[in-house]
Formats: sequence, C-alpha cells, structure tokens
Amino acid sequence: MSKPPAVCLVVSGPGLIHALGGMANANMNCWPLLVIGGSSERRQETMGAFQEFPQVEACRLYSKFSAQPSSIETIPSIIEKAVRSSIYGRPGPCYIDIPADFVNFQVNVNSVKYAECCMPPPVSMAETSAVYTAASVIRNAKQPLLIIGKGAAYAHAEDALRKLVEQCKLPFLPTPMGKGVIPDNHPNCVGAARSRALQFADVIVLFGARLNWILHFGLPPRYQPDVKFIQVDICAEELGNNVKPAVILLGDINAVTKQLLEQFDKTPWQYPPESSWWETLREKMKSNEAASKELASQKSLPMNYYTVFYHVQEQLPRDCFVVSEGANTMDIGRTVIQNYLPRHRLDAGTFGTMGVGLGFAIAAAMLAKDRNSGQRVICVEGDSAFGFSGMEVETICRYNLPIVLLVVNNNGIYQGFDADSWKEMLKFGDAIAVAPPICLLPNSHYEQVMMAFGGKGYFVQTPEELQKSLKQSLADTTKPSLINVMIEPQAMRKAQDFHWLTRSNM
Amino acid sequence: MSKPPAVCLVVSGPGLIHALGGMANANMNCWPLLVIGGSSERRQETMGAFQEFPQVEACRLYSKFSAQPSSIETIPSIIEKAVRSSIYGRPGPCYIDIPADFVNFQVNVNSVKYAECCMPPPVSMAETSAVYTAASVIRNAKQPLLIIGKGAAYAHAEDALRKLVEQCKLPFLPTPMGKGVIPDNHPNCVGAARSRALQFADVIVLFGARLNWILHFGLPPRYQPDVKFIQVDICAEELGNNVKPAVILLGDINAVTKQLLEQFDKTPWQYPPESSWWETLREKMKSNEAASKELASQKSLPMNYYTVFYHVQEQLPRDCFVVSEGANTMDIGRTVIQNYLPRHRLDAGTFGTMGVGLGFAIAAAMLAKDRNSGQRVICVEGDSAFGFSGMEVETICRYNLPIVLLVVNNNGIYQGFDADSWKEMLKFGDAIAVAPPICLLPNSHYEQVMMAFGGKGYFVQTPEELQKSLKQSLADTTKPSLINVMIEPQAMRKAQDFHWLTRSNM
Amino acid sequence: MSKPPAVCLVVSGPGLIHALGGMANANMNCWPLLVIGGSSERRQETMGAFQEFPQVEACRLYSKFSAQPSSIETIPSIIEKAVRSSIYGRPGPCYIDIPADFVNFQVNVNSVKYAECCMPPPVSMAETSAVYTAASVIRNAKQPLLIIGKGAAYAHAEDALRKLVEQCKLPFLPTPMGKGVIPDNHPNCVGAARSRALQFADVIVLFGARLNWILHFGLPPRYQPDVKFIQVDICAEELGNNVKPAVILLGDINAVTKQLLEQFDKTPWQYPPESSWWETLREKMKSNEAASKELASQKSLPMNYYTVFYHVQEQLPRDCFVVSEGANTMDIGRTVIQNYLPRHRLDAGTFGTMGVGLGFAIAAAMLAKDRNSGQRVICVEGDSAFGFSGMEVETICRYNLPIVLLVVNNNGIYQGFDADSWKEMLKFGDAIAVAPPICLLPNSHYEQVMMAFGGKGYFVQTPEELQKSLKQSLADTTKPSLINVMIEPQAMRKAQDFHWLTRSNM
Amino acid sequence: MSKPPAVCLVVSGPGLIHALGGMANANMNCWPLLVIGGSSERRQETMGAFQEFPQVEACRLYSKFSAQPSSIETIPSIIEKAVRSSIYGRPGPCYIDIPADFVNFQVNVNSVKYAECCMPPPVSMAETSAVYTAASVIRNAKQPLLIIGKGAAYAHAEDALRKLVEQCKLPFLPTPMGKGVIPDNHPNCVGAARSRALQFADVIVLFGARLNWILHFGLPPRYQPDVKFIQVDICAEELGNNVKPAVILLGDINAVTKQLLEQFDKTPWQYPPESSWWETLREKMKSNEAASKELASQKSLPMNYYTVFYHVQEQLPRDCFVVSEGANTMDIGRTVIQNYLPRHRLDAGTFGTMGVGLGFAIAAAMLAKDRNSGQRVICVEGDSAFGFSGMEVETICRYNLPIVLLVVNNNGIYQGFDADSWKEMLKFGDAIAVAPPICLLPNSHYEQVMMAFGGKGYFVQTPEELQKSLKQSLADTTKPSLINVMIEPQAMRKAQDFHWLTRSNM
Repeated sequence: MSKPPAVCLVVSGPGLIHALGGMANANMNCWPLLVIGGSSERRQETMGAFQEFPQVEACRLYSKFSAQPSSIETIPSIIEKAVRSSIYGRPGPCYIDIPADFVNFQVNVNSVKYAECCMPPPVSMAETSAVYTAASVIRNAKQPLLIIGKGAAYAHAEDALRKLVEQCKLPFLPTPMGKGVIPDNHPNCVGAARSRALQFADVIVLFGARLNWILHFGLPPRYQPDVKFIQVDICAEELGNNVKPAVILLGDINAVTKQLLEQFDKTPWQYPPESSWWETLREKMKSNEAASKELASQKSLPMNYYTVFYHVQEQLPRDCFVVSEGANTMDIGRTVIQNYLPRHRLDAGTFGTMGVGLGFAIAAAMLAKDRNSGQRVICVEGDSAFGFSGMEVETICRYNLPIVLLVVNNNGIYQGFDADSWKEMLKFGDAIAVAPPICLLPNSHYEQVMMAFGGKGYFVQTPEELQKSLKQSLADTTKPSLINVMIEPQAMRKAQDFHWLTRSNM
Repeated sequence: MSKPPAVCLVVSGPGLIHALGGMANANMNCWPLLVIGGSSERRQETMGAFQEFPQVEACRLYSKFSAQPSSIETIPSIIEKAVRSSIYGRPGPCYIDIPADFVNFQVNVNSVKYAECCMPPPVSMAETSAVYTAASVIRNAKQPLLIIGKGAAYAHAEDALRKLVEQCKLPFLPTPMGKGVIPDNHPNCVGAARSRALQFADVIVLFGARLNWILHFGLPPRYQPDVKFIQVDICAEELGNNVKPAVILLGDINAVTKQLLEQFDKTPWQYPPESSWWETLREKMKSNEAASKELASQKSLPMNYYTVFYHVQEQLPRDCFVVSEGANTMDIGRTVIQNYLPRHRLDAGTFGTMGVGLGFAIAAAMLAKDRNSGQRVICVEGDSAFGFSGMEVETICRYNLPIVLLVVNNNGIYQGFDADSWKEMLKFGDAIAVAPPICLLPNSHYEQVMMAFGGKGYFVQTPEELQKSLKQSLADTTKPSLINVMIEPQAMRKAQDFHWLTRSNM
Repeated sequence: MSKPPAVCLVVSGPGLIHALGGMANANMNCWPLLVIGGSSERRQETMGAFQEFPQVEACRLYSKFSAQPSSIETIPSIIEKAVRSSIYGRPGPCYIDIPADFVNFQVNVNSVKYAECCMPPPVSMAETSAVYTAASVIRNAKQPLLIIGKGAAYAHAEDALRKLVEQCKLPFLPTPMGKGVIPDNHPNCVGAARSRALQFADVIVLFGARLNWILHFGLPPRYQPDVKFIQVDICAEELGNNVKPAVILLGDINAVTKQLLEQFDKTPWQYPPESSWWETLREKMKSNEAASKELASQKSLPMNYYTVFYHVQEQLPRDCFVVSEGANTMDIGRTVIQNYLPRHRLDAGTFGTMGVGLGFAIAAAMLAKDRNSGQRVICVEGDSAFGFSGMEVETICRYNLPIVLLVVNNNGIYQGFDADSWKEMLKFGDAIAVAPPICLLPNSHYEQVMMAFGGKGYFVQTPEELQKSLKQSLADTTKPSLINVMIEPQAMRKAQDFHWLTRSNM
Repeated sequence: MSKPPAVCLVVSGPGLIHALGGMANANMNCWPLLVIGGSSERRQETMGAFQEFPQVEACRLYSKFSAQPSSIETIPSIIEKAVRSSIYGRPGPCYIDIPADFVNFQVNVNSVKYAECCMPPPVSMAETSAVYTAASVIRNAKQPLLIIGKGAAYAHAEDALRKLVEQCKLPFLPTPMGKGVIPDNHPNCVGAARSRALQFADVIVLFGARLNWILHFGLPPRYQPDVKFIQVDICAEELGNNVKPAVILLGDINAVTKQLLEQFDKTPWQYPPESSWWETLREKMKSNEAASKELASQKSLPMNYYTVFYHVQEQLPRDCFVVSEGANTMDIGRTVIQNYLPRHRLDAGTFGTMGVGLGFAIAAAMLAKDRNSGQRVICVEGDSAFGFSGMEVETICRYNLPIVLLVVNNNGIYQGFDADSWKEMLKFGDAIAVAPPICLLPNSHYEQVMMAFGGKGYFVQTPEELQKSLKQSLADTTKPSLINVMIEPQAMRKAQDFHWLTRSNM
C-alpha cells in the first residue's frame, strides 16, 4: 500500500487574508493543504475585535472543509477531519480557525478528545467490465496517446504507468505537473510533439489529467472531432467534463492502471513501434528539437530563453527539485528542462497563480533537508514572477536552504526594454506616463537582493558566465545563490510554438 | 449494469426562495436533484429588477454545482453538467439559473451546442486487499451487525445484500431510508431490537449509512467502545467520520457488496444461527414486538399510535409507496409499518425537514401513474407536519393521484389538548396568551381540506372506523382520500423506546 | 420624536430553511425583521448533528447582521445589536442563531451582560442648501409629481407630507406599499392616472420610493427623458440609482419633508390648481375611473375582478388592515381598494413573494388584538396565492383572529378553466398531460378549508351573495371567515390598463 | 461644498486573489476603493477556463457592491454605480468583474449607455434637538474629551473641528488615522496622555471614531463605567455599538460639527482652561514626554525605538506624507512622529494588515507627483513588515518616486537576536530547528534591496549616521532611498506605556 500522501500545513496569523491565495491555488490544483488561521477572541466577536472577520465563511469557497472547533477539547478531532478531508478522495485545501482565546486558555487534559491519525486514503478500483472495454478501445486505436496528469503523480502511479507504456509501446505526454512521473527523456515521451500528438490522436487515455484549459477542453480544432477519450480519475464528477468520453474509469489512478495492465497481461498486446503514427510523432519531435537546439545555440547577445534553459538543463542534477513560475519563463522552460523523478516539479499549475515559486522552493528544500538527501532545489523565475515574493530570499538565507534561484530577466512581463531604449523613452516624459505597464526597470540587480541577506549573487550576460555561475552555485553547498540572467528583452518563444499554458481558445 | 439513477427536476419561478428548502434537504440527504430557477433579465441586473437576486450564489451552499449559462447556446451543456454532477459520485442537488431574457430570445439553431445525455454513473470497487481484510473481520466477529443505509438503496444493492445476509446468516438493521432494501419482515431483520443490536455488536458493517446523529455518531454509550466498524461508502470523505474504522471500503455499494460475496464464495462461511447473539437479539425482538402488540390492542379511546399503525400495517398493499413525516408519527410509524421493496419509502430523512411529505407523495404517485403499475401511495402525516403543505391536496385532486393520506391527529406537536381541556384552558384567557405553542386547534377536520377539492374524507375515532375507512380508501381507485385519525392527545411512544430520530445525545 | 419603529420577530426551529424566504423578502422590501433560529449543539458541529447547517452563513446574503452569540452571557448584547441594526439606517432583517445546547445550559446570572434596549433610530436631515435647491426646482416645475413610497410610511411622514401636498397643492402618487400615507381618496391623489402622471411629469419628488422595476427604473419611455428627479431617502447608496437626479436629499424622510415645508413656509408657494397639468390628470382619472366603474357594474356572471373589488371597497371599514397577494388580484385590487391609514396595507411588495399573505394577516390581527382597537383585517388572496400558505387558517381559527379572508378564485394563475371546459379537456387525456400548468382545479371550495377549523365559509357566485357574505363576515366578530368568490376564469384587467406590478420593461 | 472624496482604483489580473487582501483591508477601514478584476471568458465558464473562479461571489464578503456587467454596453453604468456606492454613505470597497471576452469584443458605440459621473456624496445633518442635547451634555461635562477619528479626516472636517477645539478650549485625542486632522502639536492635543484621558473623561465626543478594539470597545476598565459618549457618525448602524451612548448624531461629520459650533455660537461657552482636568492631563503629558525624551536621548548602542523616531521627527518636512507599518515600529512611531496635515498619514489602520506600507507610499507619492507639490513620502517600516512587500522598491525606482523608506530593524518580529547571539544559537542546531519563529536573519542589509534597483541605500547604526543619512535622503530629490536602521534587537516600548494598537482586552 502506498504511503499516505502528505498534507502541507500553513499557519496564518489573524486576518488570514494572506493565506487565501494559497487556498484558491490549492483548490484549483487539487492539492492537499491544511491552513490553520488565528482569529479574534470569541467573546469580542461582533464588537469590532482585532482582525475580526468571518474567516471560516471566507474560506468556504476555496476549501473542502472549513470550521472553527467549538472548544479546545474538540481541536484534535477537527484537525483529524481536516487532514482526512484534505487527502481522501480528490485532494484539496481545508481550513481550521483557532480563536485567540484558545491560545492561553487551560483545560483539563482528560476532557480532550484525542484523535488518532486517519488511515491512508482508501483506494478504489474501476469496474472490471469498464476496464475491459477500455483495453479494447486501446487495442483498436490507430493513433493512441496516453496523457499523464498530476493525478497520476499524486497517486504514485509511476511504476504501473511506466510498465504500461513500455509493455504496450505507447506514446505518452505529461501535463505540466505530470512531468517526471515517467522521465521526460523516456523514448516514448512525445512532449516535443505535443500539438501534433493531441491533434491527430484517435484514442487518448487521460490518467489524472483534466480536460480544462491546459488541455484545450478536449475540443476541436485542437483534437479530432471523433477522438475517443478514456478518462481515468479519482473524482467521479470530473468524468465527462466538456466531452462525452468513450470509457470512464473511476478509481485510484495507480490501482486502475494496474487493472489495465492485468488486461494486457492476460491478452498481451503492443502498439506497433513502426506505425506511421510513431513515425509522424518522431519526425515532429526531431524537427521541434532541432529548432530548439538552433535557438539554444544562437550566439547573439543578450541571450534568448532557449540558450538559457539549454545551459540550465546541461547542469541540472538528475535528482533535483525543479520549481518554476513566470509566463514565457515557465512555459518555455517546461519544454526544455527535463524532469526525471515523479513529484519533483512544482509550478504555477492549473490556476496559474504568480508568487508561488519561492514558497514552493522553500517547501521542497525543507523536504530535502529533512530527507538528508543532499537534493538541490532549482527555482527558475521570471523577473516579474520573482517580484511577487522575492523577499522570501530572507527566509532562504535565514535557514540556509539548498536553493539555486535563477531570475530569467527580460526587464518586463512578456517583454521589456533594454537600458538604452528605456533612457530614450524617458525623453518623452516621466516613466509613469510613458512606460508601458508591462515594462519593469531595466537591468534590475535581483542578485543583490540575495546578497543583501548573505547569499551568493551572480549577474550574468553571456552563456559562459551562466555556465560558470551555475557550476559554482551547484558546487557550493554552504549557501543559497541567485543567478540574475539577462536575456533579450524582446525575446519570444519559437514562432511555431504553441501557446502552451497561455490562455486557450476553443 | 444498473440503470442510471433518475434525477428529480424542480422548476422554480423567479426568486427561487421557495426551492431552497428542497435543495438544503436534498443536500443533507444526498439525493440527486436538479433545480431550474428563473431569474431576472440580465440587462436589468443591479438596477432593482423584478425578483433580482444572486440566485446562483444563494444556491452555492446547498448544491454540488450552481451556474447560470453564459448564453442560450450553452444551455444544453450546462444542463448536461448539472445532471451529471447530480448523479455522479455521491448524489446531490444542482442549480441552473435561467434569466428571463432567455425565454423569448431567438438564436440560430446551429449555434447551439447540443449535448448528449451523460453515461450512467461510473461504478468503482474497493481495493481487493481491503475487501479481504473486511471479510476476515466479519468472519471473526462474535456479535456482528450489518446496517443498510439509503446509499445501499440508491446503489440498487438489494440483491447482493440479500444474498450476503442469507448466505452468511447475519443480522441486519435498516436505517430509516434504508428500509425495504431487504424486506422488513425478513427473518434476519433485527429492527425490533435496534438499540440492543447497536449497543452490543462487536463488528458493524455500514452499507451506505453515515455515522451521523441518526446512528448516534458511532460513539459510546450507544455502542461498545471497541466496536469495529467496516464502512462501505461511495464517498471517500465520509470514511472515518467520528470514529476510526477498522476497514474502509470505497466504492459503489452494490459492487463492493458483490466483492464481499466473492470472498464468502471462495471460502464459505456463515455466522452460527444458534449463537447467543442471535438468541439475545431474537429475545429482545420478541419482547419489543409483544409490547407493541400490547399497545396496539389497547381498547381505550382515543386510540394510541400503535393501534393506528397496527391497522394501517394490516391493510397496506405490499407494493405501495410509504411516505411519512412528523415527529412521533414518523418515528413510531417507522417501527410498525413495514417496507417490502427498496426505494419505496420516503420520509424526512437526515435533515428532518417538515413539509416534504405531500411533495414526496405526489412525486411517488406520478411515478406509479407513469409506470401504470397500479401502485398506491400511503402518506402518513402528523397533524403538525400536514400543516406545512396540506394545501397540496389541491394538486392531488387536480391530477387525481392514487394517494391515501392519513393524518394522525393528536391536536399538537408532540402533545395537544382534547377539546374539553382546550375549553377549560380558554377560561383563563385568550388562546394566544394561554395555549402552549405546541398545541394545535383540537378536532381540526383535516379531512374537509381534502373534501374541499373533491377528494374523499374520513373522520375516524375508533379502530373500527379506521379499518373501514382504510378499506374504502384502498378500494376506491377513482379518488384520493384523507383519513383524519383522532388519537389520544397525550399519546406517547413506549416508555422503553429509544429516542430514534429525535435529537441524539452522545 | 416618533416612536421607534417596531421590529418583527420570527422564531424558527433548527434548520431555519423555512425562514429564509421571509428574510429575502424583508431584505428586498427593507423591512425590519429579527429572525431567531435554533441550530444544532455546538459540540456536535461537523459530526453530522441533527439539522446541522451553517445557518449564520446561509443568512448572510439576506441580512444586515447575522451572528451566533459566542456564549449565553453575550445573548443580550447580540440581541440588542440585531434589533438596533434592524431598525437603524435603512431597515432590514437580522439573524441570531441559538445553538441547542444554550437552551438548557445554566449560567451564573451575574455573568450575563444585560443590555438595555437601544435608543430610537437616529434622525438625520438633508443639507440646508440642497433643500433650498430642491424647493427651487419644485417651484419651477411645470408638471410636478410627488411619489410617496414605503420609506415615507416607515418614517411616519404622513402629517408632514399631507401638509406639503395640501399647502402646495401638488399631485401625488403612492407606491403599492406607500398607499395610505395620505388617504387614497385625497383629492390630490392621482393614482387613477398613474401612467399619465409618470409619463409627463417634468419634476418628480421621490419620498422613500426607489427607482426599481416598480417605478420602471425612472427611464424612458415611461418617463420624459429630461424629467428631473428629486430623491429623498434614508439610504445614501440608493441616491442616483439608474438616473442622475437633479437633487439628492439624504435623511429621515419625515425630517426632510419638514425641511421642505420650512422652505415653503418662508417663501410661500403653491402649484396652480387650474394648470393644464392638473386638468390633464383629472381628466385621465375621470376616464379611468369611469372605465373601472363600467367594468364593476357588468352584470354578466361569473363576476369580473372589478365587480368583486367594487363590493369589497363598499363595505371595507375605514380603519381596517388590508392585506393582499396574488397576480391580477393584487394588482387590480390595489387600484380599486382604498387605504385611508398609513401602514395599514401589506402586500407582496418589491420582491413579489407569494405566500406572505396569511402571515401578514395574522401579524396585523395580533396587533389589532393587542391594541384592542376592534380593527379588522381584510385579506384578499388570489386562489394560487392562497395555495402557498392556506393551511394557516388553522392558526387563524386557533387564536380566533379578526380576519376576513377573500379568495378571488379564477381557477388558475392568471387564467383557468371553468368546470365544463375542464371536463371537456379531460376527454383528451389525463389532467397531468393535458392541463396547462397555470390551471388549478375548477370550483375548489376554499371556504371549506376555513370551515374545517371551525371558521365561517361562504361560496359566492353573484354580487348579491358577495354583498351578503361580506356583511355577515364583518358583522360577526366571534369568528374568522373565508369568502370564496368565483370569478370569470378568463377575467382580465382593463385592456387599457398598464402592467403595473408585473415585470417592467425599460 | 467639499470636493467629492476620491476613490482609489486597483486593477487586477484574472484570478484576483491578490486583490482580496486589499479589499478586506479597505472594508474594515471604511476606505473607498474600486477594484476591477479580469475574469475568464464567459463562454468557457464551468469548463475549467484559465483562472476561472466565481470572483464576484468571492468579493461579496468584502465589498459594498460586487458585480459583473451583463454586457459591454452596461459597463459605464456599472462603473458609475460602483464608484458611487464606494463613496456615498460610509465609504468602502466595490468590485467590478470584466470577463476576458469583453476586452477585444466590438460593439456599436451607439448601443453603449454612457453614464455621467455621480454627484458629490450627499451631506446629511443631525436632528437639531439632538445637537442641542449634545451641546448641553458637553457644557455640563466635568472632564470632557473629543476623539477625532478617520471619519473626520474623510469628511474634511478639519476647519470646523479646529474651531470647536479652540473656541471651547477642549482637549482632543486623534485615533491613529485621525492624526493630523488637527496638528499633533496643537496645544489642546492630549495624545501624550492618551490612557489618562480615556480613563477619566466623563464625557467623550466621538467624531468618526468607532468604539472597536482600537478604543477598547468603550468599556471599563479603560473608561469610567458612567462615561457619557456622544457619537457623531455617518453610519447609523455604528451608533450604539458596544455602549449605550448619551447622544447619537447621525450625519456628515463636518456638517454635524458645524451644527455643534452653531450651538456654541448662539450661547457661547468654553471649558475652563485652568480646570483640574486640564491640569491632570498636562501633567501626565509632561511626564510622558519627559520619559520619551529620556529614552530618545539614551546613548547606548544599538539605538532604541525612541532615539530613532526622535531623529526622524527632527528632520521630517511638515508637509510630508507619513506612511507606517509594523508592530512596535508603527505603535511607538505613532506616538513620536507628528502629523500636521489631515489625510497625510497612512498606516495599517483598524484591520492591522501588514504589507500595505509600500503600496500606500507609492499611492501617496503618485499623488504628490500629480500635485507637483514637491511633497515627500516618509515610509517607516518594521523589518518584518518590509518583508511582506519589499520588492515594491522596484516600482519605486522604476517611477523614481519621492519616497524615503526607513526600515527599523530589530532582526525580528517584536524581538530578534543580534548577530553574535544568533551564531551562539546555531551551535545547538540548524536554524530551522532552533531559531524562534519570530526571529529574522540578523543584520539583513535591506538597503541593498533598494540599491539593487538603483536607489540609494544606507546602513546606519548610530544616531549620527541616522541624522546624516536622513539629511542626505531628504536633500536628494533625484532618487528614492532606503535607510536600514539597526536597533537593539530586544528593544521594547516604555514600561509604563499602554498597549496601544496591540490586541485590546476589555
């Protein structure tokens, strides 16, 4: 039996407003989360107490369970319920409200109802006949595709999925948060031909991946009008969203994948590796990868995104955690930087919330420290994204966390100006009046923000400087570092690229 | 595969306030329900339009899904999503808001996105190893008990459960809405020894029954402190509520019951019918039934509850629908009136909402008419409960529905006065000042409310009159009828009875 | 200083769903209301307690203040705050939640924080310069109109407004709930020329009347495009809604009216009674009244609405309370039945909620009994409206309340069938299949519903029977009565009538 | 007539979660605010669109008005209503939701309903008799006190209040956000004897100040049990909160103050300047000021709070904006740093939200630039507070805003460690394990965060360095600067000081 998935705990002071963003994000991303918030003293309620606010109610829209214990005695059982609700079924955030007067109030220890930790989440399986049907549909597919979502990562389905992919020789595609369930460099991964794969597949099996904006709702023109979807999901209400699927398999994704494997064990089958579908996909991958490599090897300065990510990818330790946020930085970075381990990638996910990167990096680093694994956290931030919570480098330095931060700096959101153009522009008036709102100050020395707290900082403008600073940062295990990488302010993604992770059109 | 469970549809005018009670009730009872509400014209929003109200938002707290289609074109897909959400996973209510301007607005028929009806709800099964463990726990039970809840009825688990009960010779207990999944007169039904069964069982298997107030939260003193619960439920988040169970089986209740049966097929086992546990239970049932019979046979007038229900039970057609609401009327009635078919009993359920009885009776009668089954609906109402929606007899008469209504009339809520005592009391002042708020007008002729609309009415005071009026009502298939049965205003339940369906204490 | 406006109290059992409709209605109508709801025991919260529900939260959308006291000791101060919030500023509903465990719990009486009743609501006045401007605009009006809304009634502004109307000789129009602030038979009341008055006025002064659907949002074509509105309101946020007013006067409506009077005392002015505007209005009133009289005197049977209301109006005691609900019944009734006293008319109001009539009648009757004034309540119900809460006649009879109920019965909602047509229709199939959903059972004997509880019932089909039954009902002060008046099932309002109180179009 | 109060506008991207904190803060502080949020495309609603979220609903709890326009055509009138709702009556935040598909959609310009800007907020006055009573109560006071709150600042009541204070020779006390309405150095300001003034006053007049936690709920032991409160407020529902006041004056605070002045003009009166009350207050002020001066002049290093603020106060331009946030930093700073102009102080206010400082400073600086007034913004931050939104220095530098930032750095929240103690502590383990959660990294060079973006930075450890850096920062109008002031990590407020702005106890 797999270990119970951990729930992440956030403790917020009174006036929990700062925690709501995290709850909304966890809610949209189906992440288990327990937020404990402090609230005002109960006897001062309705009187205008310090930070008095209906916090339980304010959290309702974002959570699976939101409650205030009715007494100190019931705290353990409420916590148990919150933890359990957070990890049972489709995971999500829960909120517990602790009034200020609970903090110092004394109770008889015998009156407290202690609660044991709940059992690991129950595992359910799909109906046998539906599994059989699904296997038939797969066997009859001309152009099959597996899509591996974050639900598969959450369910620890990596071994079963890898066996399925390899045994049946099927092409697969990870979603942003499904990356690493099977390593990105697995020969069957068709990530580099994503659009092609989606557009021409005739049978698509979704393992814990939702047909939301990230997958273009499962609708034409991104997909064939008659594509057959097989949905594997832990959440019944998710099945059938936006399309009428061919088969629905409700259950734990790991368990259901094993049920599928049983079918292919009973009656072995494999998709022909020399099919024209595989040929098409391989060809497209090859040409896409060549285009990326071409971009990565451009010698002009400032660098472009691909050059930067190419060098990052070169030096990335295989066992590191990769954290990323930003617009182009996150989107392009995701296509170049590879993941080799499940649950080792954290990015803005479905809800696309900016500001989560440093918090994620800190959480991952705490885990690495706790594991004593020597793992590093590589956090790749856009400059705008870094601006949301860059001050967290103080926390990173305070606890000396094993984090290498990269700020991929184009002086703006999507696009900025170089320093000379900025000066030119200022001739026409004050920056307030003339600078486009998406532009940030050119050549900001984000590395100095790290240095202000005793970490290492690098300002890099060339591939060589980037290589060197990465090498040093990774070698130095005594201090966190931040590499501020200047890129072409007008750098764009490949023309032929697909608007992956930007807003989808149907 | 079982037929998809039907969703009940309610259409409400603008200002859907009248529908909220129904949604709250369905929400607490986990019933599938689709409410379609009319709202004000969109262009008048925020202007003070007729019955302008944030209805989608007002329904959020009560529903699994609440939305207004963004255009006429999207109505079909929103309806599909609402129906699907309502019946997939744990069922519940959904709300769709239709603005007034959609009603007459014309659109190009080609622009409408039609949506096919969703597939039957996905069926999931429990993990094989957990099923094995559950079977072991049952085999080792000294004093086992099965509890059959409304989830089992909803899952159409009747055949599998009956087989389990009979093959393993296990005692079972239905919850109020689980009555009839296996007939109440089945020899293994220990309903008549409910308290005893709960209190001394060492292993309890819950089939779609929640450990809420109805089952006294699963806690002592109603249960042994070390009782082992095996929970079978479709909803992961329900598992582990209030107690730490021994085994949790997540899945469709019918499918999981079959999985259990497989275990007992592989390694046959039966609970010894001559065990002291069976003896204890049978003895208690016998004494309880004797006490009821004793009460039922009392000759004093006015009648008591048991006498009334005894006669109802005598004449009840086996295939009828039984609807009931009230306090004592519903609680005592439930112990005497037997159900023989699954999903043929409707009462106030978990939420205990009064006023639902006549609506339920009408819905059941519509189904019977639609089936052309000749089935009758017997609706047993307390006099106070009848007061909530008694005017619905107009609907019953308008559509000439096959309903026999009984009003069990004690002139009050829990207790009332007889006519003489009432007159005595009025000597001390106006009824407003002196009558306890739980008292209703003595000798109200509820049967005349039915007669006002052309139905048959009976005012009965003796067992003979009751027998005769029941006989006539059931014989006459041309008209609905209402039998107003006067009982002892101070009539109480059996002293030794347990506070079944009234508020639970832990 | 005027007496503090009374707050109406409703006490609801656990699962307050039945009270939400009332709160929504009071919210939309700006009525002071305090609802006290019982909720489940606090220590059972989140465990699935009896009728456990987040009631405070559920009431938020409908109330000015919604809270659960944190302890028994704080109940008085929470009640004080709820009452005060309900009547200070613009009135509205408040909700207080009392957990079940408070009911029997004992506390030290000295620990209770008793709270005195709050002071009468604060009275504010408009800025002097704005009052001056408003008076100027009125003085310069060519076709002025005053509109008297329920805010004026609530503010007890009757004396000041009457003085203003009479001193300045201005035409006025009451809104549905503003009727009676100045008697409907006042010579300056232009209710009978409502559409004309609205459409051609060049200056309109609103006294506590909102420019919502009832007043067609203040927009053309119902009004002149350049009409100047002067808004007098207690609620700042109401000012400027939907139109840009000429002058806004924020304050207590009585106080502001007196401020206006001061202006006209300082520099006396009156609108010429022989103006062509007065002439136009009087002419229109005359022709409308003639049309009504014509309809009222029609001898054909069944009767039409006008005939019925003509006879009601004839016998109506001047000091009675008039309660009404329904569609045509309420709308047409409002034009014929006159009010002579402020705050003596209760109808569905702004929110148009059906089912409120009998509750209103009971409340008014309790007040009359309490006052020992001998006042009667005349409650005029449509047959569909009566169906919502007709069972409340039990309450009426139980407390022997001085209510005369009229059911104006057209066998349907808007329209129904007569008994013969109904029978004809049934030849084509079952009523379920063939009867339009707006039709009710023909010839329902609603009077028998009253008789079932010992009240008097009359079934009347002719003007003579109506006259006689009204006379008897009003003469008999010992019992409540219900007169079921059969009218022409296809009876409509006057063709030239305006869709008053049905949905407005801009 | 006073100019309409400006509403502050915030535009948020889709997934407006980042704006909720600001709305909650404005809601609690009664500040006018309009938030415009982008939401997902309407036709993708319920499909899992990018950042799909019920934003209008999520804002309900925090706003006076929250809506999505039903069409592009209605945007102007919705904006008008939002602006108007935000500034009419008691100010507060409003939210407007703009779906993504509105951005590029084209409409016929003639179909747009343009809306003029609303009129300035209506001004209302108190009832004359209540004003008369209030004046009497003041005249008869033995130990009177005026409290000037942020409502007075918002109402532009500075001239009237100053006249009242001077004419009647009354002592006054500003609330945190009421500072500057009358200059803090006014001889009648008794801020330096706050606790004494509150505790012994027998009559207190509240001008736009709420009896919430900041004013200790108006209850003993902070106040005399029989103190008479006269409340002047724009919000009726605020009157009577927590205490039963002697007089309530509902209206615009400026207008009501003038009404009071009229009373004292008609019958002149002044409070004897040589009363023992004045003597008590003056004595207490003198001793408190001496204690502060004593602390400020301590020569030991690191500096304490008083020394720092003493030097800031010395150099503060009289016309600057003062922004502040933090715990001790804000609380002690408020007692030392003086305000001379109304509406020139911004701090965390009633809700006590951290992270608002830099946003406030930027807003104030934009206003100063817009006014071309040459005014500077002095932003005094605690080190923990600065950590919430310190990255906003990028914005400050990008727009070259006239801001001088001070970080009063004690290496922690309330308390931290000095560098040596930190090192000692680390001998016992990792900082994660051993550092108290309230400690921040010692000697963080926050000034380098400013320098990273081209601003000036100073790291100061002595009074002389502080003086010099302040002088330079204020002299240099070409660049923003940040002065990182190291203080004693264990520095506390004066022992005898009162827990001003920390949580209140009743």
